[in-house]
Amino acid sequence: MTSTVTLPLKLTLTPLRTLPEFRPGDKLTDEILSAAQRENHTWTSNTVIVIAQKVVSKVEGRIIDLRTIEPSAKALRFAEDFDKDPRLVELVLRESRRIVRMERGVIISETHHGFICANAGVDRSNVEDQQSAILLPEDPDASARAIRETLSTESGVNCGVIISDSFGRPWRVGQVDVAIGVAGLAPLDDRRGSADRHGRPLAATCIAVADELACAAGLLMQKDVGQPVVLIEGYAPRSDPGTGRDLLRASESDLFR
Amino acid sequence: MTSTVTLPLKLTLTPLRTLPEFRPGDKLTDEILSAAQRENHTWTSNTVIVIAQKVVSKVEGRIIDLRTIEPSAKALRFAEDFDKDPRLVELVLRESRRIVRMERGVIISETHHGFICANAGVDRSNVEDQQSAILLPEDPDASARAIRETLSTESGVNCGVIISDSFGRPWRVGQVDVAIGVAGLAPLDDRRGSADRHGRPLAATCIAVADELACAAGLLMQKDVGQPVVLIEGYAPRSDPGTGRDLLRASESDLFR
Repeated sequence: MTSTVTLPLKLTLTPLRTLPEFRPGDKLTDEILSAAQRENHTWTSNTVIVIAQKVVSKVEGRIIDLRTIEPSAKALRFAEDFDKDPRLVELVLRESRRIVRMERGVIISETHHGFICANAGVDRSNVEDQQSAILLPEDPDASARAIRETLSTESGVNCGVIISDSFGRPWRVGQVDVAIGVAGLAPLDDRRGSADRHGRPLAATCIAVADELACAAGLLMQKDVGQPVVLIEGYAPRSDPGTGRDLLRASESDLFR
Repeated sequence: MTSTVTLPLKLTLTPLRTLPEFRPGDKLTDEILSAAQRENHTWTSNTVIVIAQKVVSKVEGRIIDLRTIEPSAKALRFAEDFDKDPRLVELVLRESRRIVRMERGVIISETHHGFICANAGVDRSNVEDQQSAILLPEDPDASARAIRETLSTESGVNCGVIISDSFGRPWRVGQVDVAIGVAGLAPLDDRRGSADRHGRPLAATCIAVADELACAAGLLMQKDVGQPVVLIEGYAPRSDPGTGRDLLRASESDLFR
């Protein structure tokens, strides 16, 4: 895959500012279309709409009542050692297909989707009911695809859609946003095989543009004050769209698990 | 450190498009000021200027003639096993204070600055002389600070400055940009201790905004076709500026080295 992409000469990022609080069963796409209309936003085929995972999970009903969770012995032990809620630990274990690290009060695991992150993406913040936890969408790529199809049909414009979440990482402090679901754009800009301006082949340049788009949008996402949708205008999508799964490194090529 | 930051409501990103090719000793800040003037760009105290590491390294003369490098036995062995240039391997080892992984043809190491990345940031692409390699700046925070001081003095406006590089990461495919040097802005937006909109304390939300700014700019950086400087307008810097070092996780709190 050789890149012939023209990178953007200007990007403009704006959040939707009049979205409501979301609840299970709400029509996220209706609300996005209404808010965009109210705020006089239009989009083009060069628009990428980045949506925070939490609102996708909410409308999809991925909210668990912690009072229904019976912790296992393993969850109870870890919770006691590190002063955690054992029901939350149990949920994290259930959402994981493999534990990568479980020490010092931190659980880094591989989720059933294949994401490696803290607490299998299970989160309590920003959930109205304090007895609840929120899980990642069951299939974020499918969610992104469905959102994109509805938005494209309703608006007549094929935009790109990214569902983002904030993940920590080894070696560096703080979280950055990543694309957990992608539709309508190529998540990687693979320049391997092309030449630099001095004719030397670019050795290892494959940029995770979907993650970079998620990061850019993350700068405007006020997760704690309710601005979970950001429009990025000016990013021409590549002709070979992919999914969020394309961003998951195969375990045999990974030196850190 | 509790966050009271107001996140931006609009960000605009534009690359400088008329910069020259850089060589050791060139005045990077003069060229940025001239290009900005030619292109009718002005900046404000809410502008962050993101500069690709490679041009900073070039003007600082961090270019090594590979013909001057005598590979060690260790470098020769690794180079032979994996069909690498032993002089380049030797340079990587010299730029490293600790090897994190050295297998399957990949060297992940901790540089003398404390960055953990492939090949200690040593790079051959985009160097005119095919017998040369380019190293990271000796002190990217000092470079960012000096660039910021000159740009601020000359323009009368205190912008933020980030020096970025593209790093790979475990678990996910592709590279993303990170901030290796920071001046004039807070690299982290630490919301720990503040409450979400339902009054629950935000458990672990500390966003590496300098890395997210680097990623956003990376979408417009045409490293292989020469657009290494991107202006991000609309990002209000926090009142407690820090450095790129603030983004380096202490080894005792890192589960992956």
